[in-house]
Amino acid sequence: MLIVLQSGASQKTIDQVVKRIEELGLRAHLSQGKFRTIIGAIGEENIAFRDQLRSIEGVEDVVPIMRPYKLASRDFHPENSFVQVGNVKIGGGGYALIAGPCAVEDRQICHEIAKAVKENGANMLRGGAFKPRTSPYSFQGLQEEGLKILRECSEQYGLPVVTEVTDPRNVELVGRYADMLQVGARNMQNFVLLSEVGKANKPVLLKRGPSSTVKDWLMSAEYILSEGNNQVVLCERGSQGFETEMRFTLDVGAIALAKCDSHLPIIVDPSHAAGRRDLVIRLALAGIAAGADGLIVEVHTCPEKAKCDGPQALTANMFAELMQQVKQFV
Amino acid sequence: MLIVLQSGASQKTIDQVVKRIEELGLRAHLSQGKFRTIIGAIGEENIAFRDQLRSIEGVEDVVPIMRPYKLASRDFHPENSFVQVGNVKIGGGGYALIAGPCAVEDRQICHEIAKAVKENGANMLRGGAFKPRTSPYSFQGLQEEGLKILRECSEQYGLPVVTEVTDPRNVELVGRYADMLQVGARNMQNFVLLSEVGKANKPVLLKRGPSSTVKDWLMSAEYILSEGNNQVVLCERGSQGFETEMRFTLDVGAIALAKCDSHLPIIVDPSHAAGRRDLVIRLALAGIAAGADGLIVEVHTCPEKAKCDGPQALTANMFAELMQQVKQFV
Amino acid sequence: MLIVLQSGASQKTIDQVVKRIEELGLRAHLSQGKFRTIIGAIGEENIAFRDQLRSIEGVEDVVPIMRPYKLASRDFHPENSFVQVGNVKIGGGGYALIAGPCAVEDRQICHEIAKAVKENGANMLRGGAFKPRTSPYSFQGLQEEGLKILRECSEQYGLPVVTEVTDPRNVELVGRYADMLQVGARNMQNFVLLSEVGKANKPVLLKRGPSSTVKDWLMSAEYILSEGNNQVVLCERGSQGFETEMRFTLDVGAIALAKCDSHLPIIVDPSHAAGRRDLVIRLALAGIAAGADGLIVEVHTCPEKAKCDGPQALTANMFAELMQQVKQFV
Amino acid sequence: MLIVLQSGASQKTIDQVVKRIEELGLRAHLSQGKFRTIIGAIGEENIAFRDQLRSIEGVEDVVPIMRPYKLASRDFHPENSFVQVGNVKIGGGGYALIAGPCAVEDRQICHEIAKAVKENGANMLRGGAFKPRTSPYSFQGLQEEGLKILRECSEQYGLPVVTEVTDPRNVELVGRYADMLQVGARNMQNFVLLSEVGKANKPVLLKRGPSSTVKDWLMSAEYILSEGNNQVVLCERGSQGFETEMRFTLDVGAIALAKCDSHLPIIVDPSHAAGRRDLVIRLALAGIAAGADGLIVEVHTCPEKAKCDGPQALTANMFAELMQQVKQFV
Repeated sequence: MLIVLQSGASQKTIDQVVKRIEELGLRAHLSQGKFRTIIGAIGEENIAFRDQLRSIEGVEDVVPIMRPYKLASRDFHPENSFVQVGNVKIGGGGYALIAGPCAVEDRQICHEIAKAVKENGANMLRGGAFKPRTSPYSFQGLQEEGLKILRECSEQYGLPVVTEVTDPRNVELVGRYADMLQVGARNMQNFVLLSEVGKANKPVLLKRGPSSTVKDWLMSAEYILSEGNNQVVLCERGSQGFETEMRFTLDVGAIALAKCDSHLPIIVDPSHAAGRRDLVIRLALAGIAAGADGLIVEVHTCPEKAKCDGPQALTANMFAELMQQVKQFV
Repeated sequence: MLIVLQSGASQKTIDQVVKRIEELGLRAHLSQGKFRTIIGAIGEENIAFRDQLRSIEGVEDVVPIMRPYKLASRDFHPENSFVQVGNVKIGGGGYALIAGPCAVEDRQICHEIAKAVKENGANMLRGGAFKPRTSPYSFQGLQEEGLKILRECSEQYGLPVVTEVTDPRNVELVGRYADMLQVGARNMQNFVLLSEVGKANKPVLLKRGPSSTVKDWLMSAEYILSEGNNQVVLCERGSQGFETEMRFTLDVGAIALAKCDSHLPIIVDPSHAAGRRDLVIRLALAGIAAGADGLIVEVHTCPEKAKCDGPQALTANMFAELMQQVKQFV
Repeated sequence: MLIVLQSGASQKTIDQVVKRIEELGLRAHLSQGKFRTIIGAIGEENIAFRDQLRSIEGVEDVVPIMRPYKLASRDFHPENSFVQVGNVKIGGGGYALIAGPCAVEDRQICHEIAKAVKENGANMLRGGAFKPRTSPYSFQGLQEEGLKILRECSEQYGLPVVTEVTDPRNVELVGRYADMLQVGARNMQNFVLLSEVGKANKPVLLKRGPSSTVKDWLMSAEYILSEGNNQVVLCERGSQGFETEMRFTLDVGAIALAKCDSHLPIIVDPSHAAGRRDLVIRLALAGIAAGADGLIVEVHTCPEKAKCDGPQALTANMFAELMQQVKQFV
Repeated sequence: MLIVLQSGASQKTIDQVVKRIEELGLRAHLSQGKFRTIIGAIGEENIAFRDQLRSIEGVEDVVPIMRPYKLASRDFHPENSFVQVGNVKIGGGGYALIAGPCAVEDRQICHEIAKAVKENGANMLRGGAFKPRTSPYSFQGLQEEGLKILRECSEQYGLPVVTEVTDPRNVELVGRYADMLQVGARNMQNFVLLSEVGKANKPVLLKRGPSSTVKDWLMSAEYILSEGNNQVVLCERGSQGFETEMRFTLDVGAIALAKCDSHLPIIVDPSHAAGRRDLVIRLALAGIAAGADGLIVEVHTCPEKAKCDGPQALTANMFAELMQQVKQFV
């Protein structure tokens, strides 16, 4: 860490900072310029130290030198890692092509959709059984009944299935039916849930929160990794922006940046970013071009009757078109 | 709802929309302009209807007429409501003046801080026992031990205590020690947790998420209210902005807007917004001037040794100065 | 327009709104629901009307039905338009591959860079002679001397040149040397400058402002178009976000959305979005995949001596690699 | 500056950075940790140096130690400065209470409004004669005719007048009629205009751009100051946020932060931030409580006929109420 003192810092302040650095078991390294004094703190860094040093009167800023995550960092694992979900390899040259309804609403419709996406090139199935909805009056999902339908479709069409878990008490239940557990964007910093999925022996799809930096996203991955579960796939689904004609701002820079800083596989969710189906194909291709190892899209055979997020669901024909165009990349 | 069709929408589209409106049990009301056709859907609105209608090919937008929340809305409860926490009335003319450490770290320090804030005018105590931290390697709180220390300080200094609950499995435990349960900003859309605190018979402090609209915030309050718990106090603590020299952007407009749209009491947290103590007093006053019914601030008697968020903690002297200045408003 | 009244609006309010609508030469169309009254205003809409109606006490919102721009809209020009700059066709199947230094700093270096980008596949040259810099103490560009160097390089390497104009008084001067005038992101709503370039008989490259919606961007294009200049190319260069490790958030959704709503060609500037060269290639490809009709990138043969934006300049080798990868799309 | 090298940087990189630092006339100061090497560059810093050093392969970041502005900085002028506009002192204990219409539309209405605001406690008049409008089809202002009306009202009611200048060619013209020149939010980084008002011998009101950091705002002030005009007043008017029910997010933190970092006076514009009159009074008070030296608000005696921004204009009665409440602060 570098501790930057305020201009005109007194000798007393300098002494206090040096003393505290040494109390923390680090070595202080003084550098006095014409206008500013900077003190390096050398040794095993620790996140709490930074705040403590910044709290000293007269300290302007503390600049960390090391990244706060380790297991998620490319520094500690230079090659791209990959995650295996059933017969699908994600990352390391393998692409996830995940499609399905926003929510599982009905056994027959779910079968229809699973069949349609399989025929058009999907290699995994998605679908929500426990739905996090902004309104308590909205459809909350079929819950265990939905999980059973997903499992059935998964077996019948040969598509490993990913579904969201929202409650730490349900991790075991969801894991019984699903091949991959999804942590949704709103739960990216639900650390209790992250710890629980970290203890499960299942691949995890970790969506980026709508106002999370890439660093915070990787810190959330670190929660899962540090519990011993190294099967983490990241998913970019749009950050909170000011544009009112789209739901979120798909952040392809976050994909490119996370690929630089981390070895973990990343996929793109263009459906939630766009919030409207006419933009989904373009955003999917942009995500792949930015380096994503696959995509997850919402497809519905009858979007105008969907109980959730119909406007952003691709029709089966549009999904076929998307798969056609994706082929040039994967 | 008003269903706005795309320019040049065909009669077939119009018929399809009208048919769907009637299937949903609503009455359709056609309005054809030179460039656009708009169809009103009259009757008991339902959130799912909106997405379903917007999913029909040829529909450009669906404009809701009613707000999606009810119990939180001023339409349904025109007067300001208030929440009683021990001897403290929040809202309806009463002000919460909540202060304490970010985290409970140590019995003696917690006593010191509680004593200092009591002497300087606080009427409630804050302190974290279960800490949601972005890094798995950061101090995670003293947990039940921390709750016991808070209870002890609460009794000794006569300050009702608010503390965060992060896990739906701990609501009962935290409620055993605390007078008010806090749902943190990162958990504002942790609907599982909202439902659990909605079932508890305890006042709840609901922080606004860093990229949540006021409507989403009130929808989260609605989750708690709809479970039967009407003791909800809102708390603005800054939205995610682009300024790098402050932690968050304190959104006084959100305070003023929530006061317009909802009857619920609101307080301001200037500490997390600023992220640095030199701005805390100014932001606290701004929040109160914007209409807040109180404040919650972090205070530490020795911030440079705090295990968490030391840079934003007021010293006891600064807290005394803040209380002095707040008096002109409350 | 649809005028939505507040819940419980009185008959007096309704009458006042209807009267005002009729005074404005429109026809009123009443729709009374259980909770709300909505009044349609039918006829030739005008932007000022919206604000006037919204100003009436008791009006909650006014929802426009038509888009506020015309000449830029796809409604009025359904096919993709294209702009010809010298021998380069942008849009309508033609791709702009624009490269060059951030600023023209020196005759020899500019020649070196122009030669390098030409050899590696660029079809246009970029370079700043009048530089808008955030600091008055930064290098402000070589001005007319810079324009001369650009013209010389343009002729020698057969690359039409685009350069920024920042002052309405310099439009004629810059137009004397350049093949295309650039309006920078910070000037997107400098309406005085937009009007002046609208009067010039030169193609214009209009960058999107860092916090502009697509609608505002198209309104700025409308300023130029409405002065009679229909040679407008849009350029997405990143919106203002909260991520601190990149300069801006490249908004590929804005590219896809502008393509939907407008017939104008669009290119992507990944250099300013990234602010760091290691992400530029990925972002360029993402922009093209999202539908852009070309790109504009910064290249420098010796970035560590560049007077401006060196960290985001591609080296000649990296530019060659980018061109190699772009080929699969164009 | 501190130059932070990438982890595992080679001796060759270190040598190259040191060599370049010395070429720039600075002294290098090496600090090698276990994981990172940091090199201090000591001497007269210069903005261009930072980018050049960051462009060297192997450099991860360059951390500046000094602020990039000087004349605007509190380091160089520790006391609060003030600006005198006619008989009104802004800053240093004096408060600007500026009110008037968004645009001057009509001689009689302007007189009515000026009279009303004077009677209710305003000490300065505002009004637009040259209007920057997002649409070329909107009312663009009465221009010189508007300036004459403003001058006339100013004299008759004893209110110094501030009005916007949008074109560098009009600075002299506007200065002939106005007591203070306003640079609008969209022109905050119109450096050509900043230089021109810097050469004028008139006080300048500099609004903050909707996505500008406080540092960029102060850099824009520095443009004016560095031309020799030290009569600069800053104005916060809201930053671009994601909330759709208000126009902008009033950033009281920016007021508090600018007060810390700069000696310049600051006022608040709650009207443009809110975009709706029911929130204006609350936001005005919040701005003052955060440290602003006054306010500028839009008032209209008949908002429903205003040609511009009627929904955010206070009525005369609301303005009277605002002035009543402001008294407790000023």
